[in-house]
Amino acid sequence: MKSFNEITEIVSAEIAKLNWSMQPQGLYEPIAYTLSMGGKRLRPALTLMACNLYSENLEPAIAPALGIEVFHNFTLLHDDIMDRADIRRGRPTVHKRWDDNTAILSGDVMQIAAYQLIAQTPLEYLKPVLDLFSATAREICEGQQLDVDFEAIDEVKPDDYLEMIRLKTAVLLACSLKTGALIGGANIVDANELYEFGLNMGLAFQLKDDLLDVYGDEVTFGKKIGGDILCNKKTYLLIHALQLAKGADFEDLSNCLKKSYQQPEEKIKRVTEMYNKLKVKNICEDKMMFYFDKAVANLDKLKVETAKKHELRNLAEKLLSRID
Amino acid sequence: MKSFNEITEIVSAEIAKLNWSMQPQGLYEPIAYTLSMGGKRLRPALTLMACNLYSENLEPAIAPALGIEVFHNFTLLHDDIMDRADIRRGRPTVHKRWDDNTAILSGDVMQIAAYQLIAQTPLEYLKPVLDLFSATAREICEGQQLDVDFEAIDEVKPDDYLEMIRLKTAVLLACSLKTGALIGGANIVDANELYEFGLNMGLAFQLKDDLLDVYGDEVTFGKKIGGDILCNKKTYLLIHALQLAKGADFEDLSNCLKKSYQQPEEKIKRVTEMYNKLKVKNICEDKMMFYFDKAVANLDKLKVETAKKHELRNLAEKLLSRID
Repeated sequence: MKSFNEITEIVSAEIAKLNWSMQPQGLYEPIAYTLSMGGKRLRPALTLMACNLYSENLEPAIAPALGIEVFHNFTLLHDDIMDRADIRRGRPTVHKRWDDNTAILSGDVMQIAAYQLIAQTPLEYLKPVLDLFSATAREICEGQQLDVDFEAIDEVKPDDYLEMIRLKTAVLLACSLKTGALIGGANIVDANELYEFGLNMGLAFQLKDDLLDVYGDEVTFGKKIGGDILCNKKTYLLIHALQLAKGADFEDLSNCLKKSYQQPEEKIKRVTEMYNKLKVKNICEDKMMFYFDKAVANLDKLKVETAKKHELRNLAEKLLSRID
Repeated sequence: MKSFNEITEIVSAEIAKLNWSMQPQGLYEPIAYTLSMGGKRLRPALTLMACNLYSENLEPAIAPALGIEVFHNFTLLHDDIMDRADIRRGRPTVHKRWDDNTAILSGDVMQIAAYQLIAQTPLEYLKPVLDLFSATAREICEGQQLDVDFEAIDEVKPDDYLEMIRLKTAVLLACSLKTGALIGGANIVDANELYEFGLNMGLAFQLKDDLLDVYGDEVTFGKKIGGDILCNKKTYLLIHALQLAKGADFEDLSNCLKKSYQQPEEKIKRVTEMYNKLKVKNICEDKMMFYFDKAVANLDKLKVETAKKHELRNLAEKLLSRID
């Protein structure tokens, strides 16, 4: 059984082996660039870890694991166009470094390349893995659409927000785990339990991201603190703050969102103070722990030696205690 | 054995049955809109016709045939963003009727939906059909990239242009036919011969399109005549005209391309006159017939009763004699 670190080393080595140096260069160079930007490689690691619960042979799960990572990076690429995001992981995004058309078309090819990797799943598992991947890919697009739709809505309910992040973030972690489990030869009950574990971990993970945007460490978080606040992003924190703020507090918060600030730091400071006053950090942390506990319960139910579950359990803890 | 008309009726009925009325509406409505715009439905018809050469049971080929059509319409949707095309088949394009972000994301979902239809291929043929589809999809993106690249190049060679249209247009017709043949149970030699038939027909078909833009009938062509001329599109006609024009003719033609005209009709008229003078229409028609003859030779080689080949032969003739 491999440790998380051993697994991510395998993943990094395999991603580096993918060949994008074909013609036309204008199409493939942005893909190599995108995949060289790094990231946690969490999804392919989850696929291999889930496979490793049931099999010592990770080889058959490698290509589909990479397919999921390529797909994830494709969604980031297209999302960055839609969000007009200029920087990701400290470097210019593809549509910024090249242009929108390049980002659209290179993204389209990445989606196809992802399917080509998924298609390398051993034939006996190909159909269920492929169907799960497609269903998940569609849900992610639905989540992105809901995210866009929410920008135009005055009041987003906490449960609607959770459904959005379930689709946009959690289902791909769930899919990563179930894919690995299936290829490792897990029984269907365990495979579905790992799917649920991924969903709960994904929800907790995104709530942690919401927290990090306000309370994180700028250097290690890799993006500017307060980015969500500056663009009035309806995070779990803001949604609850808008619900809880009454009277003068509500006026204050609403004005913060409407007003254009000379100094962005001023807006971040004022909104954060309101979050502190309304204790929405606690609400978000409690919900995060609620999903973490559910995830742990999912792990407990797996018909696998307890010792083997430690790596996934530790990873979940590490992701939720991260400061970056 | 079904006629082409019977086949297209099946295709239309099956496309109408696809359900896009799910949530979020903002994501799926543009897909329903795109697929309701019509078009020749040539690609799914080719899949079913190829299947029908080897089997009376078309049912297993229907979902993959629709997958190819959905994919084709996805490429049109994303190409229209990149080309800033406002009108297709007489109606506003998706990015015009909605916006760029909607067109990007709905297109992404269409690509996934196409794979979901391809995934319904009977399991015994799934792997080769899926691999062919992905390889073809990538080639189409490569063709689109070359098309974009050619805009920035002064001199495009005729052979480079043919390679571009092979990728952008011909390979999908070839893939449509081979997919149907495989599912119909064809031997691999016949399936590959039908692939070549599709390539040759696709090349001839695109050359016909180049001709129709200049010499077609505006009402039935469904788009404005001279569109390629107005945007200096490097078609087979223009590439040859630029090679053949010498001295004053070359100056005239170059000026036509550089100058901005008050009356677009004036530019179309002058470029068309130059095409006529340089007889590039004949060159294009000869090349078209060269590929048509090759396509007919491909059909001749199929190990199928001659009578069964008539529908494909007639279709090829009809496509190349069309005035729209």
